[in-house]
Amino acid sequence: MRIRILITGGTFDKEYDELTGRLFFKDTHLPEMLRRGRCLLDVAAETVMMVDSLELDDRGRQQIVTRARQCEERAVVVTHGTDTMVRTAHALAAAEIPEKTIVLTGAMVPYAFGSSDGLFNLGSALSFVQVLPPGVYVAMNGQHFRWDRVRKNAASGCFEAL
Amino acid sequence: MRIRILITGGTFDKEYDELTGRLFFKDTHLPEMLRRGRCLLDVAAETVMMVDSLELDDRGRQQIVTRARQCEERAVVVTHGTDTMVRTAHALAAAEIPEKTIVLTGAMVPYAFGSSDGLFNLGSALSFVQVLPPGVYVAMNGQHFRWDRVRKNAASGCFEAL
Amino acid sequence: MRIRILITGGTFDKEYDELTGRLFFKDTHLPEMLRRGRCLLDVAAETVMMVDSLELDDRGRQQIVTRARQCEERAVVVTHGTDTMVRTAHALAAAEIPEKTIVLTGAMVPYAFGSSDGLFNLGSALSFVQVLPPGVYVAMNGQHFRWDRVRKNAASGCFEAL
Amino acid sequence: MRIRILITGGTFDKEYDELTGRLFFKDTHLPEMLRRGRCLLDVAAETVMMVDSLELDDRGRQQIVTRARQCEERAVVVTHGTDTMVRTAHALAAAEIPEKTIVLTGAMVPYAFGSSDGLFNLGSALSFVQVLPPGVYVAMNGQHFRWDRVRKNAASGCFEAL
Repeated sequence: MRIRILITGGTFDKEYDELTGRLFFKDTHLPEMLRRGRCLLDVAAETVMMVDSLELDDRGRQQIVTRARQCEERAVVVTHGTDTMVRTAHALAAAEIPEKTIVLTGAMVPYAFGSSDGLFNLGSALSFVQVLPPGVYVAMNGQHFRWDRVRKNAASGCFEAL
Repeated sequence: MRIRILITGGTFDKEYDELTGRLFFKDTHLPEMLRRGRCLLDVAAETVMMVDSLELDDRGRQQIVTRARQCEERAVVVTHGTDTMVRTAHALAAAEIPEKTIVLTGAMVPYAFGSSDGLFNLGSALSFVQVLPPGVYVAMNGQHFRWDRVRKNAASGCFEAL
Repeated sequence: MRIRILITGGTFDKEYDELTGRLFFKDTHLPEMLRRGRCLLDVAAETVMMVDSLELDDRGRQQIVTRARQCEERAVVVTHGTDTMVRTAHALAAAEIPEKTIVLTGAMVPYAFGSSDGLFNLGSALSFVQVLPPGVYVAMNGQHFRWDRVRKNAASGCFEAL
Repeated sequence: MRIRILITGGTFDKEYDELTGRLFFKDTHLPEMLRRGRCLLDVAAETVMMVDSLELDDRGRQQIVTRARQCEERAVVVTHGTDTMVRTAHALAAAEIPEKTIVLTGAMVPYAFGSSDGLFNLGSALSFVQVLPPGVYVAMNGQHFRWDRVRKNAASGCFEAL
């Protein structure tokens, strides 16, 4: 079983720009994270985009849907900013992609920070995608939610069941 | 659904002793790892022992089996040294504990090291334990194996299917 | 010999705000950094302010000068944002504080990031302040410069001799 | 002014061997540490040996002395295990190398561990070596000691003045 990882940016992949003092996107940290997790899954990763999910518009969202539909793999993990992760989950569900298990995940703290939750979430998403039945899910905080039964609590930063 | 975590030591929890220059066990890093993963699962963790799994004998192994049987939770994660993880998986399977999903996991590099795979594995094990059917499993390298279909390759340090 | 550390904020002490995705100031990391460096110097640290040095105006700068003058210690380290560090060094020199060795230092990457230079710079500044003759200095990139012989190269982010 | 760094191993450079679960020496972390510190000093680093200082015998110690004497630079930093650092300092002093400032430093925790003091000590040693008069010194815990006025307190792991 091969897993497709669609990289879209988000906090996961933010870096610190020494010259401007701002956070920005350079390259994805995903390959490094897979190495660090000694991950031996058959994984094909691709960068669809590198954006802050607050800046992701419908057109960008459609790109993610298109790649999730087109890829050969039946197990798909999408790394995504947490702010609009649920919205992209809805777009993926609306696309009615048959026979695929799609799991969105992200991070509250950039992987480049010592205290990031990214590695935990990646391990979680890659595990859920192997065993959950077809459908669209969000995997955060060690939990998994069906796309229509979750929201991000903006005040706490946590994902919670609807 | 509450998850029981049985902590038994292993590389996961090894620390560096500044005075002797040796690795040793002090306290488990599990609570810190759960915080870092922003884990919101209902988790009850207990330290069964803190040992190098090479030093784990049948009596110690039986302690783990006993706790896995006695605990109320039907989802059980065991953190364990990788060297004899499969052997403990066999002991747990032999005990024929009904209706429980038991997932063993560990780390190749101590969590206290910057490059540890521990957080990835913990996220993975906590996810598998929620969705796999009752049985005993090993979760390492992003993969999961039934207890009787896995071995650790001592040369590569990786777990592989039998 | 006691060393006074005047904390003024800067990249050194920036944290990542999980809820807004922005960098901000909470508490200083200085005590943690001293612990990690197993520093056994007699150090008295105080937070004068917690600001981005680009937002530091003349009034704020004067506060730093005042504290550097008033404190009892003859060795003073100032942690400071790099963007206007040289300007504050000029203000300190203009104040003509007699008999004191004052060393400014900072970081290009926040300490909370895995890749921060902060610990290196702190070790460096605390060492220079013990042995340099009275005067005002900048310690960055392993080097030390007299206040009137240094500038920050905005393009490279490095400090260089004039 | 160019600084020679003589690398001899010690806790500084210990790594974790995933297969054996033991600490060992592979390559030095020094170049990575200099990069992380954004060090812009003119530095020439060489690996004299990679040993635990408890295993350093008189012959090995003599090798260090020889390189310290032969190198062109008048500023020399020696990275060294802490257990016999003072002994090597004595050997260097006994060699009566004229006109050179030699600073020994090390770490209580390997650089590969998240909590290492190595970067702090390196920043400190590189600073002291630029400004101290000729002689042999130990730089640890933010402090510097003349070779004949220091010992390691085995119980606390700290260096203290005689």
